[in-house]
Amino acid sequence: MRDLREKQLRSEKVFSGVLLHVYKDEVELPDGRASVREYIKHPGAAVMIPILPNGNLVMERQFRYPVGEEMWELPAGKIDEGEDPVESARRELLEETGYGAKKLTALGKLHPGIGYSNEVIYIYAAEDLTFHAEQQEHDEFIETFELSLDKALGAIRSGKITDAKTMVSIFWAEKYLNGEWK
Amino acid sequence: MRDLREKQLRSEKVFSGVLLHVYKDEVELPDGRASVREYIKHPGAAVMIPILPNGNLVMERQFRYPVGEEMWELPAGKIDEGEDPVESARRELLEETGYGAKKLTALGKLHPGIGYSNEVIYIYAAEDLTFHAEQQEHDEFIETFELSLDKALGAIRSGKITDAKTMVSIFWAEKYLNGEWK
Repeated sequence: MRDLREKQLRSEKVFSGVLLHVYKDEVELPDGRASVREYIKHPGAAVMIPILPNGNLVMERQFRYPVGEEMWELPAGKIDEGEDPVESARRELLEETGYGAKKLTALGKLHPGIGYSNEVIYIYAAEDLTFHAEQQEHDEFIETFELSLDKALGAIRSGKITDAKTMVSIFWAEKYLNGEWK
Repeated sequence: MRDLREKQLRSEKVFSGVLLHVYKDEVELPDGRASVREYIKHPGAAVMIPILPNGNLVMERQFRYPVGEEMWELPAGKIDEGEDPVESARRELLEETGYGAKKLTALGKLHPGIGYSNEVIYIYAAEDLTFHAEQQEHDEFIETFELSLDKALGAIRSGKITDAKTMVSIFWAEKYLNGEWK
């Protein structure tokens, strides 16, 4: 197998926004030629699969401006600087849904956009949930609802759920919940 | 259900690169307040699940600079302007792997990064494959290899495959190939 690595020659921050931080690097390709790589630096995130005692998943409905659509998603949130991803998962789940999780299980991780972002998203199953209405933050335009695993899978198949982190997590949840992937 | 839509007030292109086109919009939130949305405009892409007669999938090994790792991925490529996604799928599969597909089946689509990108990726199963060595482009630093569906699923579970479009497509392929999702 060839070594396909690219070496950084120079890095420049070309846009610094409220959310986005864009970099343009000059790199050396494996054959010695130079090229340019443009990408976003992201702090990373956690996505949670909240599983209620009745087996339903807690989902969110949220308008996503870049795609111009209301999306069905699992709860997720960015990792604060220096924060352990499992703590981000616990904090964001409580803030967005009001659910505290006694049991958080790390399932895996995903990279949503390896062509132009370094973002990594850690996936957690959240179980033994208790609802704390007063802990839910209501300043975000997010609405929560329940969905069975079967209906969530059906919503992927029908094209209602198209958010990548949510699709990966629901497929993974099926294998986790049926005992195929413990 | 509340209307969660956000209205564009103003749009500004803040970075125009070789690959990335970054916008910063002022928007009106559902409660009338103003906010800022920063995002990438992307032409869209297609990801292909090439299924060989022996049942193996054709995968790619490629260094991805933003994440600094060699990734295992399914073949994928950007949609040219005005191009039908199924034609992008056919063209990119041939260019990257040398395989021509007599049968392309649209399975679904995914949005990899709805927080900051409008990118949509269409998923195709590619079957009845014939290899045309002379059609494969060798200027990209991509190496192809075969992987059974079981090994691909195992590579997701073990954390070797973390690319979101590849994870979604492999999970979907399992249901397509076992007849659960025709």
